[in-house]
Amino acid sequence: MTLEELQAKLKKRKIDAYIVTRNNMFLGQDVLEEENRLFGLTGFSGSAGTLIVLQDKAVLLVDGRYELQAPRQVDAAKVDVVCGSRVEQCLSDRLGRRKSARVAFNAWTCSYAQAEAWRRALPDFQFIADNSEIFDNNLNRKNCRVFEHKIEFSGTDRMEKLSWLAGRMKICGLDGWFITLADSVSWLLNIRSNCLPDTPLVRAYALVDKNLGVCLFGDNLDFDFRLPGNIRLLSTADIPQILKKFKNRGIGVSAEDASCRLTDLMTAAKVRCRFEADPCLAEKAVKNPVEIGGIIKAHLRDGVALTKFLHWLDTKAAAKTELDIVQKLHDFRAAGQNFFSESFGTIAAFGSNGAIVHYQPDAKTNAELRDGSLLLLDSGAQYFDGTTDVTRTVAVGIPSAEMTENFTLVLKSHIALASAVFPAGTSGAQLDAIARDPLWRNQKDFNHGTGHGVGCFLNVHEGPQSISRNHGYYPLQPGMVVSIEPGYYLAGQYGIRIENLALTESCPETENGEAFCRFKILTLAPVDKRLVNKYLMSSGEISWLNQYHETVFRQLSPFMDEDEKIWLKDACSPL
Amino acid sequence: MTLEELQAKLKKRKIDAYIVTRNNMFLGQDVLEEENRLFGLTGFSGSAGTLIVLQDKAVLLVDGRYELQAPRQVDAAKVDVVCGSRVEQCLSDRLGRRKSARVAFNAWTCSYAQAEAWRRALPDFQFIADNSEIFDNNLNRKNCRVFEHKIEFSGTDRMEKLSWLAGRMKICGLDGWFITLADSVSWLLNIRSNCLPDTPLVRAYALVDKNLGVCLFGDNLDFDFRLPGNIRLLSTADIPQILKKFKNRGIGVSAEDASCRLTDLMTAAKVRCRFEADPCLAEKAVKNPVEIGGIIKAHLRDGVALTKFLHWLDTKAAAKTELDIVQKLHDFRAAGQNFFSESFGTIAAFGSNGAIVHYQPDAKTNAELRDGSLLLLDSGAQYFDGTTDVTRTVAVGIPSAEMTENFTLVLKSHIALASAVFPAGTSGAQLDAIARDPLWRNQKDFNHGTGHGVGCFLNVHEGPQSISRNHGYYPLQPGMVVSIEPGYYLAGQYGIRIENLALTESCPETENGEAFCRFKILTLAPVDKRLVNKYLMSSGEISWLNQYHETVFRQLSPFMDEDEKIWLKDACSPL
Repeated sequence: MTLEELQAKLKKRKIDAYIVTRNNMFLGQDVLEEENRLFGLTGFSGSAGTLIVLQDKAVLLVDGRYELQAPRQVDAAKVDVVCGSRVEQCLSDRLGRRKSARVAFNAWTCSYAQAEAWRRALPDFQFIADNSEIFDNNLNRKNCRVFEHKIEFSGTDRMEKLSWLAGRMKICGLDGWFITLADSVSWLLNIRSNCLPDTPLVRAYALVDKNLGVCLFGDNLDFDFRLPGNIRLLSTADIPQILKKFKNRGIGVSAEDASCRLTDLMTAAKVRCRFEADPCLAEKAVKNPVEIGGIIKAHLRDGVALTKFLHWLDTKAAAKTELDIVQKLHDFRAAGQNFFSESFGTIAAFGSNGAIVHYQPDAKTNAELRDGSLLLLDSGAQYFDGTTDVTRTVAVGIPSAEMTENFTLVLKSHIALASAVFPAGTSGAQLDAIARDPLWRNQKDFNHGTGHGVGCFLNVHEGPQSISRNHGYYPLQPGMVVSIEPGYYLAGQYGIRIENLALTESCPETENGEAFCRFKILTLAPVDKRLVNKYLMSSGEISWLNQYHETVFRQLSPFMDEDEKIWLKDACSPL
Repeated sequence: MTLEELQAKLKKRKIDAYIVTRNNMFLGQDVLEEENRLFGLTGFSGSAGTLIVLQDKAVLLVDGRYELQAPRQVDAAKVDVVCGSRVEQCLSDRLGRRKSARVAFNAWTCSYAQAEAWRRALPDFQFIADNSEIFDNNLNRKNCRVFEHKIEFSGTDRMEKLSWLAGRMKICGLDGWFITLADSVSWLLNIRSNCLPDTPLVRAYALVDKNLGVCLFGDNLDFDFRLPGNIRLLSTADIPQILKKFKNRGIGVSAEDASCRLTDLMTAAKVRCRFEADPCLAEKAVKNPVEIGGIIKAHLRDGVALTKFLHWLDTKAAAKTELDIVQKLHDFRAAGQNFFSESFGTIAAFGSNGAIVHYQPDAKTNAELRDGSLLLLDSGAQYFDGTTDVTRTVAVGIPSAEMTENFTLVLKSHIALASAVFPAGTSGAQLDAIARDPLWRNQKDFNHGTGHGVGCFLNVHEGPQSISRNHGYYPLQPGMVVSIEPGYYLAGQYGIRIENLALTESCPETENGEAFCRFKILTLAPVDKRLVNKYLMSSGEISWLNQYHETVFRQLSPFMDEDEKIWLKDACSPL
């Protein structure tokens, strides 16, 4: 559907606005291009945003990451881009003068909590839950192969996970739990698929009863293994029928993660909805020992691939473009064991493209590397035993003193958090400030979170933990994997980001019995020393980097050929 | 009333529990000893806590500051002390098995929001709002002198403040605002009193209408100046009568800061309660230029007094006790211009008393200073032009290497925050982590907030800003005064705290037009260098301390006699 066609429908039905989210019915971030209604309607390709379609205009709400990118991608005559505003504010600004404006939204792609929040914030507006009649939920229809995530990688048997969930039901006095997040379902049942290019999750809902029976609601799923007897595969169209069996029974469901349409169906079936957070979220975030072992091995393989690539980039490559880099890095990774896919579209951003925070090169923007600027390379992979996400910023030619100074400040920020010690239970918002402190002291900052959780052969962005001012309420616990990725961006010039993944672990000894945590860095790849001004660093910071590089060399050198080893020895030599 | 008498009443009325807060009807922290029902019932003298009186036992809930002190003060046979728990949890633990337990609370001393939260958390319990029939609200009855806070100190005329408030009413579509916080009323009307020993606020409610008419509800107030025509003095008993005039009209009132009794009276009078945060809170927190000028002058005077005292302590005093110190420090301060009172009971805590975070010496605990330990001295004053709050920890005799190391870590924490730069709007919770970072790196921490807002000749603890993990949600803005007071405490041994007040101000120049803030330190008094191990400090930290000491000497030395000047020169010499 085009923007104009949707607007024509709105006029016909006397609807003042239609809220288009970037979600599909799983409310997650993994949305295929053909499902991405924001992209379809406006051309905006960012990973977050909300479009408010008015009868004669549309307003695209984006966050700081897309402040530069969004206006480049949309037609300003049709779409206003607004950065940092909220849906409620925008609706109120644009429709506030009307009495009882009519606002529709797709009930399959908005959470119950989201719809309730809009209703509460704008009680004079009439909100209409559209069950895909005006604008469909547009889920990808191609068949997917579903396979087991083997116990040697997952570490915990699915029956054990289901028993744990039944235990939670008992504590909460529930008869079942409707798990709606695709990554929670994939984790709970140890299943993965090739549905999506970068994330191996299975798009399905799971209704688990207290006797460990599972109704798995998914469409176009081809299982390459035999489902155990307690798991029944059904279509999402079967949901109303199955819900009838739970009439008057209490089912846990997450107000934030279940679609408004699902909770409407539950209410219609007279199921007692008990709004509880998805219990898999917190459980999945703390990795078990088998997962941790796998994640460490995956990072070793990923470090080998990335480092071989960095050597190639530095010594072998003649003229190169961003897209050449994406391909070459893929080839190095794909040669490794247990490789499944990238974990997100590789960001190879040269020069001013690096200042566009979530830039991905395409044929139109594809820049050729030239001396005198920086390449920002943010990439990662899905291995059966773990997920990686790493950013290195490298000098192409001789960097300016200003580039070096800014890179060093970002490195100081990275080290501040990477070397931090903190009481168990410290929130991500607090850690965020520790990372930003060195940049702030120079009146510099970056307009994105400092870190996010990472799944195990699952989503590369995984909650509930987050190292950010706005979303970082969740306490960090030993066993959680997070990214540490401060940056600095100069619009029109270049971007800098240094990202490692880290495992939160308990400190070995504590005073007064208090529990302190620290980070163990998982990512193994040299940081470009040509961009470091060591006179801006403290002795503690210098020794952190030297120790990190010593580890990188020790771990990676056995996998390097002679040329690579010589290059790596130099790249990892002490400052 | 004794605990036993209250318990007898509960049995007679078949009430399972009575919640006793430390509040009076102004819900503020300033509660006289004779009003302090926690103290009256249990002997606990701390500044925060809640008592749950059951028919046969009482449970005192305290926070980390009182973990050591509370068990010392109460009779364990009658009162269980629980640290870090919540009222809801305690009620549920103790009464959870009963169907519909009956729980009473004094409606004058609990906020509307608090009572609602209890009701929501425990829907099976029956909550009974006691209008002082079971347990009175016990307000101090002695007469108070009320005087003007002159324009030369307040900087803004009361009519200007009332006009501002009327403007806020207009924006919110209100006919009036019921201001219930005593410090908000005192600030709004530029009035102060001698009601309380350490805080010059006037205990009164103000109902302000949109035509700038004020009904001031207070008891036993003697005004030493003529009230302007728009302000009518009434008794709190007149509230129901006056509310009748606002029938069907919209009145703003703070759910958090108005007593449940007041909102019940408003509802009974058919006033439309509109729950809005007290607008004076945020307005009062940002000091105007006259206030800032006064606060700076008050700190100069306070620094002169404290420094003269420190010189006396170090050179002149022979045998001394904590109570001698309290008196001597008072004498130095009282000699200064514009001195009104202390701003809180002086904490002079020697040796192991210093590990009790909010210790105040009395005849029973009064310790004599002996060589080989630390004196923690936390004190402050109310001057007509500003309020001070300062902590210095000083060595008595030769400190141990461990004391010096811990002091230096606390100093590093202090400097980390004092020298921080941060975007305008950064929350106190984020800044809290920057302060704790140096201690955390050594697996050390302290169990209280890092900082609080400070009034201008008003409450020494003033919101809404707070530099703490749990309460630090409010963004810091230029013009706010905060304390910076990290510490470290070793139970049974000693306590360390270094506290300065600081003014939040804009950085003079910013890059990309972003607004950054920093702190200007207001407090002027030397930090005890005998406790500093400079080899644990970075060059940046050393130069911060040297510059601070240079400022202290430059500002204070003109007010010192010859002996004092020689001593101060040495105390402020570079590390």
